[in-house]
Amino acid sequence: MSHYPPSILKLIKNFSRLPGIGEKTAERLAMHVLRAPRSEAEQLSNSIKEIKEKVRLCAMCFAFSDADICNICSDQRRISSILCVVEQPPDMVAIEKSGSFAGLYHILQGVLSPMNGIGPDSIRIKELISRIAEGKIKEVIIATSTNVEGEATAAYLAERLENYPVKVTRIASGVPMGGDLKYVDQVTLKRAMETRHAV
Amino acid sequence: MSHYPPSILKLIKNFSRLPGIGEKTAERLAMHVLRAPRSEAEQLSNSIKEIKEKVRLCAMCFAFSDADICNICSDQRRISSILCVVEQPPDMVAIEKSGSFAGLYHILQGVLSPMNGIGPDSIRIKELISRIAEGKIKEVIIATSTNVEGEATAAYLAERLENYPVKVTRIASGVPMGGDLKYVDQVTLKRAMETRHAV
Repeated sequence: MSHYPPSILKLIKNFSRLPGIGEKTAERLAMHVLRAPRSEAEQLSNSIKEIKEKVRLCAMCFAFSDADICNICSDQRRISSILCVVEQPPDMVAIEKSGSFAGLYHILQGVLSPMNGIGPDSIRIKELISRIAEGKIKEVIIATSTNVEGEATAAYLAERLENYPVKVTRIASGVPMGGDLKYVDQVTLKRAMETRHAV
Repeated sequence: MSHYPPSILKLIKNFSRLPGIGEKTAERLAMHVLRAPRSEAEQLSNSIKEIKEKVRLCAMCFAFSDADICNICSDQRRISSILCVVEQPPDMVAIEKSGSFAGLYHILQGVLSPMNGIGPDSIRIKELISRIAEGKIKEVIIATSTNVEGEATAAYLAERLENYPVKVTRIASGVPMGGDLKYVDQVTLKRAMETRHAV
């Protein structure tokens, strides 16, 4: 790489800091930027700067937002008595895309992970409890991931919320739609059997 | 995606214009930038801008350069009588990395591709002929790719250079080093047999 001029080397280095971008891909991206119209490069450059200046966490739900309160929290049409708890903003976006939820969110901005030193105080659990303590929320859907840390976080939240007059539910796990039973892993199948429902 | 705030959507859109970056990867990159320290994001943003401002083509060899004449062309220790012709700057960088060449380069900035409307006048062939017409170059090594277009370009260049008092050579093709004969494709094997050399 060191045979490129310094300005190209610098861009390659900066690109390769992005997740999943190795040195080869970074080189390819830099070559693209070199060839792209100046306006395209400037748009990319400016939008990187802008995101750091504009985006903050919504004061209510901790989603990324350009304003103090995000679009969803400030939308009067949303059902404010149901709260869906997710780990990260992309999880919220995935649920929004599915069109299956019309309530409000609470983004934990992380997941309990004692191995990595992430305890209840490191993520937005205190703020979740405060929202629920206000008494307007009737149901909390825990939509953390179904891996070890997500399950542990869900169990911890369920315990913490026991003393509040709120219904606590967990999104269902089971065979993915369109899935072929014989390719589904055992743990998922076991869960699908355990949480079967009447039809 | 449309459930992110506008500034994040803009960055995702701009990232996904890069080659090999789909919408999902662009989302992941944007999330990384959001979480990264402000200085890291600024470095990336600035280096994209800088590359468009600083980088130009070397007036001699048409490699990318921060100066009018690139480091290699201005390096007095390079052998100025041997010219290696490549398609693109990354090809030059690959040869430099191999440490197998101490002469100068000529970057065509493309390859003949009649199907895409790229003829001899669209790439730096005129400039190559001018450099050779000066009479100081004794050997031209054609190091274009070994795909159809690269081979056609090599054949075209060899023909164009016939009338100049210069030795024209082509980089060898054959079995890659460390390669297993049985996995080598037939065309490569045929070429390796045809261009065999005495040991």
